[in-house]
This record gives sequence, structure tokens and C-alpha cells, in this order.
Amino acid sequence: MSSKLAQPTAAGRTPRPRVDARLPERLALSAATTKGGTEDFARWLAGRGEANTFRVDRIPFAELDGWSFEEPTGNLVHRSGRFFTVEGLRVTGGPAPFPEWHQPIIKQPEVGILGILAKEFDGVLHFLMQAKMEPGNRKLLQLSPTVQATRSNYTKVHQGADVKYIEYFIEPGRGRVLADVLQSEHGSWFFHKSNRNMVVEAVGEVPLLDDFCWLTLGQIGELLHQDNVINMDSRTVLSCLPFADPHQRALHSDTELLSWFTAERSRHEVRAERVPLAGLPGWKRGESVIEHEEGRFFQVVAVSVQAGNREVTRWTQPLFEPVGLGVTAFLTREFDGVPHVLVHARVEGGFLDTVELGPTVQYTPGNFGHLPAAERPLFLDQVLAADASRIRYEAVHSEEGGRFLNAESRYLLVEAEEDLQVPPGYAWVTPGQLTTLVQHGHYLNVQGRTLLACLNALEVQAR
Amino acid sequence: MSSKLAQPTAAGRTPRPRVDARLPERLALSAATTKGGTEDFARWLAGRGEANTFRVDRIPFAELDGWSFEEPTGNLVHRSGRFFTVEGLRVTGGPAPFPEWHQPIIKQPEVGILGILAKEFDGVLHFLMQAKMEPGNRKLLQLSPTVQATRSNYTKVHQGADVKYIEYFIEPGRGRVLADVLQSEHGSWFFHKSNRNMVVEAVGEVPLLDDFCWLTLGQIGELLHQDNVINMDSRTVLSCLPFADPHQRALHSDTELLSWFTAERSRHEVRAERVPLAGLPGWKRGESVIEHEEGRFFQVVAVSVQAGNREVTRWTQPLFEPVGLGVTAFLTREFDGVPHVLVHARVEGGFLDTVELGPTVQYTPGNFGHLPAAERPLFLDQVLAADASRIRYEAVHSEEGGRFLNAESRYLLVEAEEDLQVPPGYAWVTPGQLTTLVQHGHYLNVQGRTLLACLNALEVQAR
Repeated sequence: MSSKLAQPTAAGRTPRPRVDARLPERLALSAATTKGGTEDFARWLAGRGEANTFRVDRIPFAELDGWSFEEPTGNLVHRSGRFFTVEGLRVTGGPAPFPEWHQPIIKQPEVGILGILAKEFDGVLHFLMQAKMEPGNRKLLQLSPTVQATRSNYTKVHQGADVKYIEYFIEPGRGRVLADVLQSEHGSWFFHKSNRNMVVEAVGEVPLLDDFCWLTLGQIGELLHQDNVINMDSRTVLSCLPFADPHQRALHSDTELLSWFTAERSRHEVRAERVPLAGLPGWKRGESVIEHEEGRFFQVVAVSVQAGNREVTRWTQPLFEPVGLGVTAFLTREFDGVPHVLVHARVEGGFLDTVELGPTVQYTPGNFGHLPAAERPLFLDQVLAADASRIRYEAVHSEEGGRFLNAESRYLLVEAEEDLQVPPGYAWVTPGQLTTLVQHGHYLNVQGRTLLACLNALEVQAR
Repeated sequence: MSSKLAQPTAAGRTPRPRVDARLPERLALSAATTKGGTEDFARWLAGRGEANTFRVDRIPFAELDGWSFEEPTGNLVHRSGRFFTVEGLRVTGGPAPFPEWHQPIIKQPEVGILGILAKEFDGVLHFLMQAKMEPGNRKLLQLSPTVQATRSNYTKVHQGADVKYIEYFIEPGRGRVLADVLQSEHGSWFFHKSNRNMVVEAVGEVPLLDDFCWLTLGQIGELLHQDNVINMDSRTVLSCLPFADPHQRALHSDTELLSWFTAERSRHEVRAERVPLAGLPGWKRGESVIEHEEGRFFQVVAVSVQAGNREVTRWTQPLFEPVGLGVTAFLTREFDGVPHVLVHARVEGGFLDTVELGPTVQYTPGNFGHLPAAERPLFLDQVLAADASRIRYEAVHSEEGGRFLNAESRYLLVEAEEDLQVPPGYAWVTPGQLTTLVQHGHYLNVQGRTLLACLNALEVQAR
């Protein structure tokens, strides 16, 4: 967990099993435990909302405090040189219908920690969730991981309050790591950004602070069925939990799947290079917004935030605001009783390495309204037109509200039509295979990880 | 293997086990089969050397055909815009004693295929190796994988001969994939370079062409004990074979190991940016060589090559030439009967993602001769001074002879001293854990993969 490993001492030189065989059943028990529901939680969350007042206002760029457009690049930067910058990106070698494009992108090279603390109560693993305000979320207060901190946060560049519970994730001996992996963030909006996704089981007593609550995986699973309760950072961390694969079978063996992925990564020759934000082709900058000339994709805007329980009590910052509600869906199908989902090897300009696996459908439909049917993204219309009887899961979730404004998407699991032909770039995989892959970074994108967390929550319901 | 997966048809919709449980024992059987040694092979290789004449001469840059220093960057480029370029790199945020440096680097964004074809004869897996000349190797003719081809090679930019056996690696239905993973190449000399490491078991009869021979893993393991016989591309592919872990125990669990690796990757804030080769601080360009002002590290040179069995029969090209023999070693130790090696989380300027695991020691000693003892790399002197009784393995191997000239290193496995204290950035891991990690890219660097191939060869000898 920290970069220190226990030293092999005279007393500690005995190798142990490489894999913790008991963890999957402990996770399953937590997932099966709903403790009679989440009504108490709903009251608690409402109370936290009343105890903490927030106000978010759009402001012109000129009113940003400490942020300015740097000459001659026109990049939007903070005077400290930290936090993040908004720059331009030029992408070539992408797939149709957008083989080449320019866009603004967020560059934030430091690696943050998204960490959930776990602890057993009455023999059942509970997870410490935080009611946290993020300025970009339409529903401001959502459940975040125990710790959701950029390196600037916990090394005090903000000059704000300490990050609560951070010691469990950076000090040796405070806990036992259940998962710890660098995962990519949104490749369409971030350049090469990844965060450390951690779950740590605490050693010893854990004090319970205001704005925090212990929930079982079963309770979190129920909340995942509600709109805008479990925030993105929680969803990606939850997706990394090493649940057991009850089937151990799949249409394609793990080796075939990795081989297909390797081929997908090899066949794309995507180039993404940072360019100045000033004069970015196809984009225009106004007093309060940087937007696409045809009003598509997203805007860069600025907000002022006043909050009571955040690390600092007032600040201003830029945010990215997509132009519409997204649709993010896996098509699903059972083969001989084994559930599969159809993954898409996606190119996103900000990925560190060419492609990652994503949902079958991950689009903002409005961006494609002008295209003839033949050029519209594969499977988008099938998902939009899906009969209610085919929808196994549906909820609206927000993306990271610290960088994105009103970035919401309908997340869906939709049963595929029987005659579906798998096109190049797509493959049927099992949730168990995805769970194996997300123990490593850069395989499954952040939207895919949200859906994996939902799949695992559904799986438990079904038992 | 190609980017096409078998479609789920009415006949083929039945999921199969995710893991091929029989493969590890088939690999073990091949590794245990030495067929009485490699004397026949030695005669065969000598014969191939007589049948193929090669000549490599150093030339001034001005005599390079199709290559020139592009203005104003001074980068060394080919007129086709393909193959590779030699550019400058500036690295900051590196560890002591070199926190910041400039260097020439090879940029070759396309992904090549390093592929070994496998086939069972008399119930034992054999691997099709090629006697291949590479201009940079002191011993020109070595054993390469069946296919060792850049994308330019097999898409005919060279306008040379077809790449033999390539169809098994790019056409569906020609074989069954045993391993297929994108692995990094030398991060000190290449910028973000990776190649596809593949092992494919052929379906049907395979014609045996001149310059190719079938060997068991046991025979290849014997040859790995000889100097300069198994080339780098073969070694890295061999390291990806999914051998069984006979122990299944380790000092640190797999999760602890991944967590430590994640922490190592997160704590380094290395920045590597491409800069013009012209005027690169600390480097000077002459008629025939680009070299470091103090004569350290490596040189960029040019050669003319005449060959009989290469895709084209005469060509010129640049090569990187290190200034001395390298020393590359794992310190090893058994804990309760379980062998471990001491890995080092290394920063190399050309890595795609900050750090990869490498050998305990991976240095060209001459680069550090000017430093006081306290600043010399950890464990280097311990390896150089190791008593012969502690050396479990030693052989000189070459790096990729298509890009590097006389790039040789003593590869060693050396028993650690009993009182070894593990410093930050180092960890004890088992060969079994490394074998699990190399099923994925960017964990173990190319020198570490050579030593893993050697470890697996030793393991078999020991039985």
C-alpha cells in the first residue's frame, strides 16, 4: 500500500499462499447482506445535505481566482503550476466516423488516491463511504470513497484541511490491501490520467467521523440502482474488488481474449499530441465558455463554489460540461447459462495506450444526430430503442464532479437481440473475465468499470 | 491472434473453461525433453553460417542510403518516413544519481510481431527457431523466433521477401494462441516501444524451410547456457510462456506485490519529452558517431550490411552502440524452499508508464566508474565481486541486433548475501509471480524477461 513492503526478517521469512482464498467468500457474504435496506441511510444522507450548504455558480473565466489563459499557448493554467491545466489535443489515426479531430483536454499528471476502507462488523465486511459534495454534480452530495484525493490534496497544496483517513492508504501497517491498481480516467476528457484505486481492510478500531458511514456491499448494490447516489470514484473502486467467478467458463478462453485485445491494441495507429489551446481548429473561446463551433461534444466553463465541509471553503475552478445526457450500455447475453457482455475496444484520445475495453455503447447521442444512419455508432440505435422487457439494469450516474459539470449518463444493461453479429472491435466476455482484467490497469475504461460494478451488484440480487 | 475472434454460431455457443489446464504440463514435458543434447543443432547452426555470408561495415552518416539529418531538428530520419527515427529525449524527475538527463532515443511507434510457432512431435511440444543474422550482433547468426518482423517488414515497406510463417500469426484459423502480449523493449534506448510477443501452436502440417529448426524447450534451455546463441527476441517470447508455479507461495501475496508495484509507479513523477536531436545538451555529433561528451552510455553510429538470407540483400542503417559490456543480474534467495529473486522498480526514460520491474542490477559498469562508492548503483559491486560459488547462472547475451551494435551483457543469477536489507524500490518475488505478471505488458522489462527465461530453464535442469 505504501511503497514499503514488510521486510523479510528472521521471524517473517515464511512464504504464504500467493492468493487469499477466503477473500472472495467474504466479499460474497457482504454482497448478500443488505441489513433490511437503505432507509436509514437515506435519512442519514438527507441529514448530511442539510448539515452542509453548497452553492455553485457559473462565472466568466475572468473571475477565476488564480487561473488564467497562459500566453502564447492559450492554455488554461493555475498560477501554482499544480492542480491541472486545460490544453489542446490533436488526434489522428482514429476510427470512422472521426479519423482525426482536435479537442480541449485536461492534463493532470499526478496520480490521486481513490480509497475505500473496509472493516468486519459482526463477521461481515463493511465499507466506509463518505457523503461528499462535488461542484459539478447536479445532485451535489453523493457517496464517495473514504478517500478521494489528488496528490495536491494530501500534500497540502490546497492549504486546506487534512484528508481524513488518508493514513490507512499511505502508512504501512494500518491495514491489509484487498485491491490496489492504477486505473485510467475518462480518455475523452483527460490526457493520460490515472488514479490509484484501493481497498484496504483496516487493522484495529476505526473512528467514525461526520459525513462517513459503513455500508455492506449489499447495501451499496441497492444504492447503485438509484440515480446519482454512488459517485464515479466509488464505482470504479468497487469494480476492482476480486469477486469469485462462479462459472469459470467463457466463450473465449482468457488467453484468446488477451490475444484479441493485444491485436486490437496493435492494429490501431492512433497518435495523440498536445497542441496549444489557442486557435484549436473547430473550437472557439468566449467570455464564459470554450465550445465546439457546431455546439457538439462538450464545453469548458468556470464556476465559483462555496461549501462548508470541503477542504477549503470557497474556490473557483474550470469544469468540462458535456452537451447532453450520455448513454452507456453493455449488450448482454447468456451462453449456456453463462452471462456475457459485449465489450468494445475503444479509441479515446487521452488513453495512455491506444485502446481500452469499454461498454458496447458509450455515446452522447446528440453528437451523432447529424449523421446518416449508416455512419451512426454501432448498436446505439438498438440500445435507444430497446424494449423495456430487455432492460436488465438502468440508472443515471454522474461522472467525476470535481472536473465535470452535469456529466450524467444513463447506464444500462440490455439483453442483445438473438441475431446479433459481432463486428470487428467487439467481443463477448464474462463479468468474471472483466474482474480478472481490472486487477491490472488500462484494460477496462472507467465507464466499463461502472457497469462492471453494476453487474456484480445484479449478480448478487439474482441469487 | 488476428483481431478476429471465432463468432459464436449455433454450433459454437458453448462456453469452455477459461484456462487451458493441460498447457503447463505440456510445457513442462517439453522443458524436460533434451533429446540427448544440442550437438546436432551446433552442426546445423555452423552449416547455416557457412551457407549465408554477411558483412557489416561502419560507415559515415553521409554514406547512409535514404537516411539523413532532418532540418531543423537534426533528427535522423528515413526518407520513407517509416522504419524508425533517432531523436532527442529530455527526462526529469528521475532517481539519483541522475535526476535529469538528455539522450538520443529511437522512436519507432509501430508494433512488431515476435512470434514462435509451436507444434507437437511424438507428443512433445517443439518450437520453430530461425537461424537469423542481425547486423549488430558480434556473433551475427543467432536463434531468433520463427517470425521477427516490424509491421513495415510484413506490410512490405522494405520491398523485400515475404516474411516466412507470418500467416500463422496474422490469419485466423492457422493456429491456437498459447501466449500473446505487448511487451516493452529497452526503455533506455527506445521511446514507448513495444512488440507483440506471441506463441502459436500450429494447426496442421508445417513445412520446414531452410534456416529453421524445431527444438524442445529443454534444448532451448541448454542453449540459453551458451553465450550469444538465443537472441533477445527469442528470450522475451520464451519468458511469456505460462509455466506452472510449483510452489504457489511467496513472501508477499500477489495482491501485496501488485500494491507495492502500484505505489512505485505512483511515487515517481518522471517526465520524458522528445526534443530535437540537434544541440542535445551533453552530446556531440561527428562524421560517423553521435556520442556523449564524456564518452559514456552509448553512441549512435551507421553501418552498411550485405547479407544473403535477409529480406533485402544490402542496406545501410543507424545503430546504437553501448560503450561497454553490461552486467544484468538477479540476486536470488530461497525462503523456506521457495526461490525468490530481488526485482528493482526501474525508471527508464522511454518507458510508456514511469517504471517497470527489472533485474536487481542492470548497468554498464563503466558509466559509474567516476562516482564515489556511496553513489554507485545499489548491489552492483556485490554482483561484480560475487564469489563463483554464489553464481547459479552466467552467460553473455546480445540485445536486439537490428537496432543495437555489440550490445552485450553478462546475465547472472547470484545468490544474495544472508544479511541483505531490502531498500525502497526493491522486492523479493518468485519466478511464478513474474510468470503471472508477464501475461500482461509493462510489468517486467526486457532484461528481466531474459532472466525469467533463464530461471525457467534452470528450474527444469534442477528437477
